[in-house]
Amino acid sequence: MGTLERNRPAMPEERKDPGPDRPSERELIARIRAMSGSVADDLVCGIGDDCAVIRTDDGDRLVRLLTTDSLADGVHFDRRWHPPFLLGRKAAAVNISDVAAMGGRPRFALLAMAVAPDLTGQWLESFLQGFVACLTEHDALLVGGDTVSCRRGAVITVTMVGEVEAGRVLFRNGARVDDSIWVTGPLGGAAAGLELCRQEGEGISTAQWTDLVQAHLNPEPQVRIGSLLAASGKVRSMMDLSDGLATDLAHLCAASRVGAEIDEKLLPGPGTLAAAAERLHLSALDWMISGGEDYQLLFTAAAEHDQTLLRLVRQAVGREIHRIGRVVETPGVILRTAGAGRRIDYQGYDHFQDR
Amino acid sequence: MGTLERNRPAMPEERKDPGPDRPSERELIARIRAMSGSVADDLVCGIGDDCAVIRTDDGDRLVRLLTTDSLADGVHFDRRWHPPFLLGRKAAAVNISDVAAMGGRPRFALLAMAVAPDLTGQWLESFLQGFVACLTEHDALLVGGDTVSCRRGAVITVTMVGEVEAGRVLFRNGARVDDSIWVTGPLGGAAAGLELCRQEGEGISTAQWTDLVQAHLNPEPQVRIGSLLAASGKVRSMMDLSDGLATDLAHLCAASRVGAEIDEKLLPGPGTLAAAAERLHLSALDWMISGGEDYQLLFTAAAEHDQTLLRLVRQAVGREIHRIGRVVETPGVILRTAGAGRRIDYQGYDHFQDR
Repeated sequence: MGTLERNRPAMPEERKDPGPDRPSERELIARIRAMSGSVADDLVCGIGDDCAVIRTDDGDRLVRLLTTDSLADGVHFDRRWHPPFLLGRKAAAVNISDVAAMGGRPRFALLAMAVAPDLTGQWLESFLQGFVACLTEHDALLVGGDTVSCRRGAVITVTMVGEVEAGRVLFRNGARVDDSIWVTGPLGGAAAGLELCRQEGEGISTAQWTDLVQAHLNPEPQVRIGSLLAASGKVRSMMDLSDGLATDLAHLCAASRVGAEIDEKLLPGPGTLAAAAERLHLSALDWMISGGEDYQLLFTAAAEHDQTLLRLVRQAVGREIHRIGRVVETPGVILRTAGAGRRIDYQGYDHFQDR
Repeated sequence: MGTLERNRPAMPEERKDPGPDRPSERELIARIRAMSGSVADDLVCGIGDDCAVIRTDDGDRLVRLLTTDSLADGVHFDRRWHPPFLLGRKAAAVNISDVAAMGGRPRFALLAMAVAPDLTGQWLESFLQGFVACLTEHDALLVGGDTVSCRRGAVITVTMVGEVEAGRVLFRNGARVDDSIWVTGPLGGAAAGLELCRQEGEGISTAQWTDLVQAHLNPEPQVRIGSLLAASGKVRSMMDLSDGLATDLAHLCAASRVGAEIDEKLLPGPGTLAAAAERLHLSALDWMISGGEDYQLLFTAAAEHDQTLLRLVRQAVGREIHRIGRVVETPGVILRTAGAGRRIDYQGYDHFQDR
C-alpha cells in the first residue's frame, strides 16, 4: 500500500547501511505479515497487495479499498526542488495510484502531517492546496487527519479509502502462464526527472526536460485506465509501478507463482529519455527497469485479448498501452536484449543499493 | 482524529515558537477544514470529530469510522524511557480510543512507519509485537501499511477503521444545556507519569508510582464503556480525552454551541496523584485539567439519567464513572473551586505553551 512492500527509489539517505541488527525492509515486512491478521468475514485481502480489501456489511456490490503511504523529507522528496503545491499533489497521487492499481476509485483521504518548525505557513498552505486539488480532480474528499510537530523535516502520511465493484477488484496474484504483460504508459521518466533535479545547477537546466521533470514532480495516477481495465473483465492481475518495473514485476510474479520475460525493445520510454540519459551519462534502460515512481499500471491478460485491450483503451481514453512481454512458468524476471536474457528481479531496489 | 484538533501534551520540543509565518495548529486546521470536502452521499461526518463517519453502500445497519494519528519520536514519545512493546501498544491504543469515542469498535489498522537507521531490529520487533497485541485484545486486525526510512528518529502513523451501528454513533456536537458532564475514569495520571519518567534519576524512582507511569506508558482505550454508553441511547455527546479536560471539553462545547461548568471537588484523580504532585512540587489539579493523554471518555447526558448510567456501567463493567459538572448556556469552560469560578478553556494547550 504503497504497501509494506514498497521500496521507493529516491534520495541517497535511504540507502544507508541499516546496521547489523536492523532487518531489511523485506524481512521487516515478512515479520509484520506473519503477525498481521487475515481472518475476518469481511476482510477480502490483507497485507500483500496495493490495498487491503474490505467487504461492506450488507452486500457485495462494492468493496472498500484501504491504503497508506508515508513520504519523508530528504528521503522521498527534496524541498529544494519540489514545489509544495506539486508535492501535495504527489502525496495524494501516489495513494490514489494504489487504489487505481486494484481497479478502484478513490473516495476519502486522511492526511497526517508531522512537520518541523522550519516549514513555513506558506509552504503548508501550498502543500494543502495541491493535495486537495489532486483529490478534487479524482472526486475524492479530505475527511480527516492529524497535524503534529516533529524535530526535523516532515513526514507526510496519507491514507486513502477507495471503492470498486466487488467482482471487479484486481489483485497481483492472478497472472497465468502465457498472459501478455502490459504497462499503461512510458517508463523511466520519473527517475530521469529526479536525476535532472539533483544535478540542476551543475551545468544542467531542468527547463530543457520539462516532461521528465514533471514525471518526477507531478505524476498522474491512472484511475481512468485502471477502472476501464477492471471493468473489461479481461485483465487477470494488476498493480501500480512505484518501485520500478524490475521490482514490481517480481512482486507480481511471486504473488502469482509465475515468472516473466520482458523484451527490451518493447519497453516504452518518454521521447526525450535517451537524450537525457546521454546528457547525464546514465542509462535510459536502467531508468526504465529500475527507476520507479512512474505510477503507470502493470497488468497481465490472456494474449487472445491483446487487440481488444489496445483498442479499448485507445477508444475510451485516447492513449496507447504497451505490451512488454509475457508470463512464463519459470520463476524470476528475465529481460531479453537482442536474444540474450538476464535476470533482473528486484533490481529497482538492489540497483540503488549498489550505486 | 486524534483529529486535526489534537494538540498532544508531551515533550518540550513541541512547544517551540512556530515562527512569525507559521500558523498555529488551530489556524492550520481551520484552513484544512475550509479546503476539505463535506459533500458526499455516504459521508456522514468529515473533519471535526474523533473520526470521520462513512455510510456503507447498501444499508444503514453499520457505519464505518476512520481516524489517523501520528506519533513523533522526541515529541510524542521518548525512547529513553518508553519500552518499544508499550509504545507499540500505545500507538494502537490512542487510535482505538478515537473509535471508542464515537461509540465504535475497532476493526482494521494500517501502520505507516518512517524510521531512521538508528532504530534496531529488536526495537522494531518489540514495537510490532506490542502494536499487534493491543489490536488483538480489541479484536482488530493489522491489514496493511508502509515502512520507509527517514533521517532521524521515527514518525509512526496509525490509521484505524472502526464500525458502529448507524443509529448509535455519538458525536461531539450533541450536548444540551443542563446535561450532566461525565468522565469514565481518573484524570491526570498520564501527565504525572510523564513527569515522573522525565525526572527519573534526579532523585525520583518511577518504581514507586507504577500506576501513574503505566497511565503514561500504556493507556487503555475505553472501547467497552464507549460501546455500552452508545448502546444505552441515553448519551448525547462524547469524545475521548487526549489533550486534557480543559481543551477537550472546550472542543465539545464549541461543537455543541454550549458552555460547561465543572467542579474541582468532583474531578477524579488516581489515588497516588496528590502524593506525586507533592513530591515533584507540581499541581495535581493542573495535571487533571490540562495534562492530557488520559484516554478516558468525556460525555454528556440528560441529568435524569445520572443514576441509570452509573448503575449501567457499574453492573456491566464493574467500574465507576464520574459526574464532574454540567452543561450551561454561556460559552466557555468554567472551573468552580470553593465557590469561585475561572475560565479554563483550551488550557491543555496554553498551559504547556506558557510553562
